[in-house]
Amino acid sequence: MKLQLALDFMEVEQAAQTSKDLDGIVDIIEAGTLFILKEGIGAVRKIKEANPSMQVLADLKIMDAGDHEARLGFEAGADLVTVLGAADNATIAACVEEAKKYGKQVVADMIAVRNLESRAREVEALGVDYLCVHTAFDLQAMGLDPLADLSMLAKILGREKIAVAGGVKLETLPAIAALQPGIVVVGGAITKQPDVKEAAKKVRDCMSANEGPR
Amino acid sequence: MKLQLALDFMEVEQAAQTSKDLDGIVDIIEAGTLFILKEGIGAVRKIKEANPSMQVLADLKIMDAGDHEARLGFEAGADLVTVLGAADNATIAACVEEAKKYGKQVVADMIAVRNLESRAREVEALGVDYLCVHTAFDLQAMGLDPLADLSMLAKILGREKIAVAGGVKLETLPAIAALQPGIVVVGGAITKQPDVKEAAKKVRDCMSANEGPR
Repeated sequence: MKLQLALDFMEVEQAAQTSKDLDGIVDIIEAGTLFILKEGIGAVRKIKEANPSMQVLADLKIMDAGDHEARLGFEAGADLVTVLGAADNATIAACVEEAKKYGKQVVADMIAVRNLESRAREVEALGVDYLCVHTAFDLQAMGLDPLADLSMLAKILGREKIAVAGGVKLETLPAIAALQPGIVVVGGAITKQPDVKEAAKKVRDCMSANEGPR
Repeated sequence: MKLQLALDFMEVEQAAQTSKDLDGIVDIIEAGTLFILKEGIGAVRKIKEANPSMQVLADLKIMDAGDHEARLGFEAGADLVTVLGAADNATIAACVEEAKKYGKQVVADMIAVRNLESRAREVEALGVDYLCVHTAFDLQAMGLDPLADLSMLAKILGREKIAVAGGVKLETLPAIAALQPGIVVVGGAITKQPDVKEAAKKVRDCMSANEGPR
């Protein structure tokens, strides 16, 4: 299980420093959609340059022009970019094609996808590296979380291909870790704590302690 | 019918100048998704400040965190932002709510939406100002265009609430203009011409000449 830290409400310099501080604890730093919209894709390069050994994901949520947008992310130093599972197949395929050229990876964000099970099979067949079950920020307040979707997809796809995102916190982490998804995405549960490094360690320890049997 | 010019492959200064040059010909300048990802939302402010009388649309294609992302666009001076029709209802509603606070507008981009007719009715009920029928860039090469979708939606929604986008060019414009959508979005058919102002005038004239009966 990789731990991905989503950064949204941060300045570029702080994000770059966070990547250095969390080396060895976090596996992937996510430049969040809001962060990229604010700062522009150049911010991804600054984060990558601050700590080249850390993987960086650009949460572009690509919905159109898959080749152009994926290339923008990879050229800026992203190791992974996201495409929406709701996008047209041609858009997803274009992202996958672009990733292959760069030797990089594509995560399909399944946020807001209806008929998740059947769409997940289609999206996987398009060659993405990960499928991310993701409860929208706008739905988290209603108490929804991604566990049920994770559980369902873990049964039909290789669980190491599944990423899970959307309000994951210490209380919900044990049940998620037990299913051993490939990537667990955590945001505010780390970044909003007074000591970010300590919080990241706690999350990592919780993941290890609750990891289910292989 | 408003004419919206989509800018993607441009530098900020050139986009700002284009807005000034096309005053009175184009109604809305669109800061395209790729453009915003490249430059950051600050580019929207520069375009708006270059010509405050021109409406500016930030093509954010919001899929999550509707309030945060819409606010980012409006705070940067956008008159309209886009949310994806494929987003959760809560996300679309959050964008509409934010737009009301700012006295601004929301366009729901129906790109890649399955069951367009039923989803259009749902999205309209959420209070968006426009619904945009939009053929993905990645599908235009297959010869697809948005005319059939426009024609279908024009029958069930007020046509003045419909925007149309995706490879619109002089050859396809007459049939589109005859249906009188509220907004016609043109990109490369103007920006890739040697004389952009002349090309914009031709598009505007073609829209006027083919405008169907009210």
